[in-house]
Amino acid sequence: MLRTFVSGEGEIPSSGLVSDYLAELHFRISHLSGGAVASYIPELAKADPKLCGIAIATIDGKTYSAGDADVEFTIQSVSKPFVYGYALERHGREAILQRVGVEPTGEAFNSIVLDEVHNRPFNPMVNAGAIAIAETIKGATPAERAQNMLTLFSRLAGRRLSIDEQVYRSELETGHRNRAIAYMMLNSGMIRRAPEDILDVYFRQCAVRVTARDLAVMAATLANDGVNPLSGERVIATEYVSDILTVMNTCGMYNYAGQWSYDVGIPAKSGVAGSILAVIPGQLGIAVFSPPIDQHGNSVRGVAACKEIAQDFRLNIFRSHVSTSTVIRRELYGDIIHSKRARNPLERRLLSETGRRICIIEVQGPLFFGSAERLIRRIGDVQSTTSHVILDFRRVPSADEAASQLLARLAGAFNETGRKLLISHLAHQPALATLHEAMEQALPEQIFEHRDAALEWCENAVIAEAGIQFDATRFSLSELHIFKSLARDDLRLLEALARPMIFEAGDRIIRTGDPARLFFVIARGTVTVELADAVQATHQNLRIASMGPGLSFGEMALLDGGTRSADVVANERVVCYGFSVDAIHELGRTHPHVLTTIYANMMRDFSERLRRANDEIRALEQ
Amino acid sequence: MLRTFVSGEGEIPSSGLVSDYLAELHFRISHLSGGAVASYIPELAKADPKLCGIAIATIDGKTYSAGDADVEFTIQSVSKPFVYGYALERHGREAILQRVGVEPTGEAFNSIVLDEVHNRPFNPMVNAGAIAIAETIKGATPAERAQNMLTLFSRLAGRRLSIDEQVYRSELETGHRNRAIAYMMLNSGMIRRAPEDILDVYFRQCAVRVTARDLAVMAATLANDGVNPLSGERVIATEYVSDILTVMNTCGMYNYAGQWSYDVGIPAKSGVAGSILAVIPGQLGIAVFSPPIDQHGNSVRGVAACKEIAQDFRLNIFRSHVSTSTVIRRELYGDIIHSKRARNPLERRLLSETGRRICIIEVQGPLFFGSAERLIRRIGDVQSTTSHVILDFRRVPSADEAASQLLARLAGAFNETGRKLLISHLAHQPALATLHEAMEQALPEQIFEHRDAALEWCENAVIAEAGIQFDATRFSLSELHIFKSLARDDLRLLEALARPMIFEAGDRIIRTGDPARLFFVIARGTVTVELADAVQATHQNLRIASMGPGLSFGEMALLDGGTRSADVVANERVVCYGFSVDAIHELGRTHPHVLTTIYANMMRDFSERLRRANDEIRALEQ
Repeated sequence: MLRTFVSGEGEIPSSGLVSDYLAELHFRISHLSGGAVASYIPELAKADPKLCGIAIATIDGKTYSAGDADVEFTIQSVSKPFVYGYALERHGREAILQRVGVEPTGEAFNSIVLDEVHNRPFNPMVNAGAIAIAETIKGATPAERAQNMLTLFSRLAGRRLSIDEQVYRSELETGHRNRAIAYMMLNSGMIRRAPEDILDVYFRQCAVRVTARDLAVMAATLANDGVNPLSGERVIATEYVSDILTVMNTCGMYNYAGQWSYDVGIPAKSGVAGSILAVIPGQLGIAVFSPPIDQHGNSVRGVAACKEIAQDFRLNIFRSHVSTSTVIRRELYGDIIHSKRARNPLERRLLSETGRRICIIEVQGPLFFGSAERLIRRIGDVQSTTSHVILDFRRVPSADEAASQLLARLAGAFNETGRKLLISHLAHQPALATLHEAMEQALPEQIFEHRDAALEWCENAVIAEAGIQFDATRFSLSELHIFKSLARDDLRLLEALARPMIFEAGDRIIRTGDPARLFFVIARGTVTVELADAVQATHQNLRIASMGPGLSFGEMALLDGGTRSADVVANERVVCYGFSVDAIHELGRTHPHVLTTIYANMMRDFSERLRRANDEIRALEQ
Repeated sequence: MLRTFVSGEGEIPSSGLVSDYLAELHFRISHLSGGAVASYIPELAKADPKLCGIAIATIDGKTYSAGDADVEFTIQSVSKPFVYGYALERHGREAILQRVGVEPTGEAFNSIVLDEVHNRPFNPMVNAGAIAIAETIKGATPAERAQNMLTLFSRLAGRRLSIDEQVYRSELETGHRNRAIAYMMLNSGMIRRAPEDILDVYFRQCAVRVTARDLAVMAATLANDGVNPLSGERVIATEYVSDILTVMNTCGMYNYAGQWSYDVGIPAKSGVAGSILAVIPGQLGIAVFSPPIDQHGNSVRGVAACKEIAQDFRLNIFRSHVSTSTVIRRELYGDIIHSKRARNPLERRLLSETGRRICIIEVQGPLFFGSAERLIRRIGDVQSTTSHVILDFRRVPSADEAASQLLARLAGAFNETGRKLLISHLAHQPALATLHEAMEQALPEQIFEHRDAALEWCENAVIAEAGIQFDATRFSLSELHIFKSLARDDLRLLEALARPMIFEAGDRIIRTGDPARLFFVIARGTVTVELADAVQATHQNLRIASMGPGLSFGEMALLDGGTRSADVVANERVVCYGFSVDAIHELGRTHPHVLTTIYANMMRDFSERLRRANDEIRALEQ
């Protein structure tokens, strides 16, 4: 149960809800007694046992905090998982696994027991393992290695960190147990460099000054797959993040790991200065700082706070929030959803009758084995009734290798059949680069930047297959919807008014705001109707339609005169007929039925387009 | 890397991709040698070492398999996590934790070492712990307890299972080590009942006959939060699933747990008959069966197969597929998106000018702390520019307690301000019951079944606040869009044609297919336009619009005569004016400008509605 929230009056607390929760939690746990400030490093013993800070950072960079969350302390053992990650990235998994194992020991953090069978420390979370890992920090001199180490932590925290010289010197002078461990390892060949050299960087590493807020951001960097959510910088390669979390999970809380997993259930690491860092992958990082520690070396208030947060927020790595069932956002079909390419009545009828052969699947959420398997299975289900499947990847934030390869294999297999698989919105997204590459290899011709272009491609294919084509070279006005059911004599009068006009590619046939004096019928070529995009102010025009031979545009001029409400641009050389609005109205005065027939035709067209638009809205609202 | 897929020609393999992968994997691993068939139970030693089966089950009940996936064998230790779950559910976490701990031992499965400090076995995955857990199986007699145990496994597998009497008897005769463990525990008071009684049900539990496919379904039941994906039956309460997985993860592979976590990274349990069951929460269950086992008691081919599957499918509990960034599917605003309530021109203008105060947030995916926090934060961001926020929960499959409470608190706080929070699509979903209840308490008036009703409520509030109201008792025809800019004399001619009509609630004013002879103007009351829903064949009419005073319907009759394309039903007592199409056309013959003006007005209206519909489509396409 979340406990009482305290919130300000008269305003919606929104993010205050979490801050208030933390404030209330802080109030409770800061009154806990028990434990003692670590004394094995003399400088640490000076810490104020009353200090208590809590911080949470989300994977999109929001931080919440309570209490002494901005007080600096030394990072100590909480540094270990990060240097381990650094080592994996620089030297590879195999090389590091030979130096340090991954088995929990059930021993204390400063245990001198080593894995004699494999001649390596048991794991990188105990001091022995961490010292062996510290040897792998790159740099030609001790100063350079220290600098590289500090740079790592500064990038993890998203701010420039420094070393606590007092604590560093204090440990340098008194860290004899660690010296013993290092010499033991040198003796067995587990390390090669001079122990003092390695310990120098290791003691500095433990003495990096951080705040609870810094640790929360570092935890959130792990939760965010290695990318610092504040700076947006990738600090750890994705492939090693799960290794780090695995070792934290099995060894991070020393001989308290089993109970911690059961009670808290999230990978964590504690340090003797009194801090605990915990990671909820894909959600957030948590850090608590309070100096008194228990017999396992874990902060007493830190453990209590983490237990409560995990319980209240229902955080547990095995509470699955993965949802493979939502991988398909929706399916749309080509009989209801149309591309922006305007079609003549014959084509429209064909598409409304057979457009169901075109299926658009909107994919959403991260793609991994479970979600990709479900998507592929659904594609298998729809294939029996469709000839074209468009996968719209607009809402896919990432795709791992397993998903990429499954989809690429599917694409290859699809291609060998008569059916077509088309892809849109895959370009320009770094987290989809692998999938994009794989798909481009399988379907070089069928990758589209926008879904509309893919849909138009499918519509064109269906229309071409049906052999429907408007013969633009010799059509009569009676074939145009706007002049439908007019008598031959009336058509002859209109023909006399038609002015042939030619435009070149890029010509602006109609310009927004210009007086509306003509309407047009296209004989050859295609045009695009564009709207100046005022809302989004992207300085880009919005394409609202394109149209080809046999279709008309600018007819609204007949009603209002007034001014144009959109631009119409020639996509290539366009031949069309222009009709003067004044001349048509003049004709209407002597032949009123010509005007009412034209109006009635326009209205039928509007009415049909409105009906189609409403069908489309209903489908899109689902 | 996924290895070669073999697929049939000419058809899209879809789900075959995974089957083919398993077939290929099976081919490779069935050639692995090493290990030996377990011999400590004489009956097990008779197993054929060549047997090898692999099965995968997804959380929506699809199973894939290869090799001997339908050969029966005895479940052995793989039964332990499930009986542990049973015990937790029947006796509660506290009571069970007092009997059996949760710390890994680093000892073999049949270790006789006990946790002397807490006077309990170390964990429920070693034999000692499993025997103590077996004591908790309910039932008055041994037969009843055996029956309850068997029922549990039958429900987990989704089929009626049986006990292998030979193996049971073999273990009953030779299981002296387990007898020793039981008597040790009786001696320390860790168990209370007669050891032979407990061992009888324990030996039967180990001798339940299952196939690899059964185990995959049982694993998928854990992956699916305790609901068997084949039967749809809840077998384990959600709250204990993470406890089971936690213990499997830390203790399931005995003293191989650290390396297994590192190499495979998914919670698993092995049995000495040669099976391994592994769970990928939210995705799938995996099972491998092959008798030869290694020195840890784990199937040699099983470990190899799990390593490859985990690597190829990128399965690891710390590869986060949780995505809090997709919790907001999209935001829509009331200036672009309108309810199905048709509005008069004044209202339309008002809504297009100030409708941005109404914000619809479409929420998607499971709601838990991370996603709820993000949603609440976004609501906080939009509140400065909005007076009404509608949360559409249509695409939310589940909400945990943490999310439910955060949202309920937000709702309470919202309510105290002048701003309104409205909720739609929360009813009738069992997985949202907690959230629904919490919201209903906070916002009793603002829970709507459908979003459209919530939106109409907001629009009405905005319109009422602006004080715009169409005075239906004394309006002149010139106020109707259809008669706009007609001269006073023309209006008088039309007034003479208006026939006042009264309908009662439920009256069908217009019926699909009827000849279209009138059009109508509403003076009082509202009507609903309905479309017979042919596509979905739900035998329910589709509401496409509702309209009130000052609006007209049925005007298309002016064009075609023809027949009606929709039904119009009175929502309450409706007063309207009917105009005969014939009479209007007659008037048009003597006064042609009346007809062209009416047509032009209708066209302007269509054109505006089409423009709005296209705006709406653009917004919905995002």
